[in-house]
Amino acid sequence: MKAEIITIGDEILLGQIVDSNSAWIAQALLPLQIQIEQITSISDRQEHILEALQTAAQRADLIICTGGLGPTKDDVTKHTAAAYFQTSLVRNEEVLEHVRGIFAKFNRTMPDINMGQADVLANGEVLFNDWGTAPGMWVAHEGKIYVFLPGVPFEMKNLMSHRVIPKLKAYPSLAKIAIRYILTVGIGESHLAEQIADIENAFPAHLHLAYLPKIGMVRLRVSASGTDLAHLEEEVEQHTQQLIERIGPAVVAREDLSFEEVIIRAFSEDQVTLATAESCTGGNIARLITEIAGASQMFQGAVVAYANSAKMQVLGVAEETLVNHGAVSEETVIQMAQGAQQVLGATYAIATSGIAGPGGGSPEKPVGTVWVAIAGKNETITKRFQFHQDRLINIERTSTQALLMLWNLFQKEKGF
Amino acid sequence: MKAEIITIGDEILLGQIVDSNSAWIAQALLPLQIQIEQITSISDRQEHILEALQTAAQRADLIICTGGLGPTKDDVTKHTAAAYFQTSLVRNEEVLEHVRGIFAKFNRTMPDINMGQADVLANGEVLFNDWGTAPGMWVAHEGKIYVFLPGVPFEMKNLMSHRVIPKLKAYPSLAKIAIRYILTVGIGESHLAEQIADIENAFPAHLHLAYLPKIGMVRLRVSASGTDLAHLEEEVEQHTQQLIERIGPAVVAREDLSFEEVIIRAFSEDQVTLATAESCTGGNIARLITEIAGASQMFQGAVVAYANSAKMQVLGVAEETLVNHGAVSEETVIQMAQGAQQVLGATYAIATSGIAGPGGGSPEKPVGTVWVAIAGKNETITKRFQFHQDRLINIERTSTQALLMLWNLFQKEKGF
Repeated sequence: MKAEIITIGDEILLGQIVDSNSAWIAQALLPLQIQIEQITSISDRQEHILEALQTAAQRADLIICTGGLGPTKDDVTKHTAAAYFQTSLVRNEEVLEHVRGIFAKFNRTMPDINMGQADVLANGEVLFNDWGTAPGMWVAHEGKIYVFLPGVPFEMKNLMSHRVIPKLKAYPSLAKIAIRYILTVGIGESHLAEQIADIENAFPAHLHLAYLPKIGMVRLRVSASGTDLAHLEEEVEQHTQQLIERIGPAVVAREDLSFEEVIIRAFSEDQVTLATAESCTGGNIARLITEIAGASQMFQGAVVAYANSAKMQVLGVAEETLVNHGAVSEETVIQMAQGAQQVLGATYAIATSGIAGPGGGSPEKPVGTVWVAIAGKNETITKRFQFHQDRLINIERTSTQALLMLWNLFQKEKGF
Repeated sequence: MKAEIITIGDEILLGQIVDSNSAWIAQALLPLQIQIEQITSISDRQEHILEALQTAAQRADLIICTGGLGPTKDDVTKHTAAAYFQTSLVRNEEVLEHVRGIFAKFNRTMPDINMGQADVLANGEVLFNDWGTAPGMWVAHEGKIYVFLPGVPFEMKNLMSHRVIPKLKAYPSLAKIAIRYILTVGIGESHLAEQIADIENAFPAHLHLAYLPKIGMVRLRVSASGTDLAHLEEEVEQHTQQLIERIGPAVVAREDLSFEEVIIRAFSEDQVTLATAESCTGGNIARLITEIAGASQMFQGAVVAYANSAKMQVLGVAEETLVNHGAVSEETVIQMAQGAQQVLGATYAIATSGIAGPGGGSPEKPVGTVWVAIAGKNETITKRFQFHQDRLINIERTSTQALLMLWNLFQKEKGF
């Protein structure tokens, strides 16, 4: 089955919000062997919505629309959908009770404008929204399925998980897909491509190899689509295995895991723990780790030592070190890492200090200068990086490089 | 001028990566009065790329394509664009030297596959990429402008900032847009809509009011498009002022600032400082604050006290408190907040402790139970929240609610 996603709302086109809903929906549909053909983000204008619905229906069997279901004037999805299906909106009493209930629960009077939240497409089925005031809707029309969901991520995700996916599971899909992933670290995309060129060239035509590079790592995706799923799975598995054997130790995972998940799993298995002492990354490494369930198995905590007083008071960095070498120096990150290791009682500690920018640079230490230290069981390693002007990218790059350094030291010290 | 963005790459359709490039591009083009009509994410297949280029050119004057410019087999954008323009690819010696130079800089041999990175569209202009191996390209074709950029965010952003935007500034735009923003906190979307209904209803037809709700806050956007920019600016300004007067103290900013930026600015102006003691938010509040340049003016640091030992050792939470009341309790967050205030030397401190999930819940404290404390100049306030099952949403909601509590206490204590 082929699907398309239409996200409706000026806020995406104006860059006010990043569309993270679509990636979530795509991932949620993959296990059902439903492939996203296209994602289209359009404005709240009626003619634009009509055009998008028409063209999506020409390519896909399932059209998922998010956004524009709110109570305010700029939300026109429902009325536009009624025009598209040549149907009307009818008030649903059960939904109205639910909306009233939400306001009652918070001891607030319901503004009249919210009555309209209970109006649903006459030709559709209500996807009851336990998590907000806008109901989802499911419409089967001329051989296609249309699903309308609110754009609020929390509500959309719950409606997808509890209403849409169970209904979709009842549909037989057309094309089957088999997928495998390989996560590699420390090899650049083009070197990796050369290393496996002969294997890739010998892939049968219906097998597809994709390179998904991120800073310091490349994820490979091997996929095949056809009709015989068991055969596809076997074929994809066999070619994946061949790639893994060729690439060797740079393969850190063969599931669709993030690098943080790989680290958490490996540390938990080895019963070693982690702490961070972050200056320029401002808690971003701790956040990346703790976003993942199970992090508490191995993560002790972090000290975000933004002010120099915090570096001294909490992490025990010596005042002379800060005075003689500065906060962004090898000496300081070593003391930060070892201080975090001690005060937070962790086997490994990461420390970062740098000039994230845009201000704070000097000729010797321009914006983008970063020192990272990793304190391990037997040694503390350090590295100086020179990144660029962009604050957010500097934070992101420092975080990834620090995790790579941590991984390398952990591998080296394994067995000690 | 109307623009469309086409993002090319299976990884977006498979949900492997979130398309954050498009929002960035949209924001970068707004000051040039260039409006994004549509964002389309498509696969790496040639026929799909051709179709997207054709339909975008029917609606827009400027088409920006990202992705698919890498050296590997799955990157087909360049060859497809050559077919679309009925032109060829030619090797550019200057680009080739640059690509060789990048590999030389890191003392690595250049894989032959990278030679192709220097092949550019014969009918276009090279947008020299100082930040990576894939050059951007600018093509003027049948009255439209086409821009091709790599999908790597860092490279795309630099090419946009240093190559594309300077060239676009030379073009006269067609429709002008005037925009104002109002950030409100603490009023729900529908209550806000009722409060300003008469003003909104009296808006002239070419003025548009949009509601951009997030947890605990609503951003209003007033915009108008037409030909006389000075007049539009005046009109939009006047209606924005009318809304601000009606809404009153719930307005925290009238620029397009994030809530974090508002807090940093207000704290810096008042010369008060902030620290956080985070358990369930895992450093996310520190990250939100430190992502913003200028945070060091008012942010002292954070302790991410994930393990109980960290709560005791670093923040001075009493062992009896943890034993008698548990880590997720009012008593614990009070001690965490006051401990952070003291150890990090801050005027205000936020503390969070909760069960983010999916594991760790109990009948008395189910997943989603969160305690937040704010220690201020004269008092420490607390609140218990009951969120839902989703770990990332619980982290996000806790972070926002904690910042709202901080803002309210800061407002109350202002002048002390």
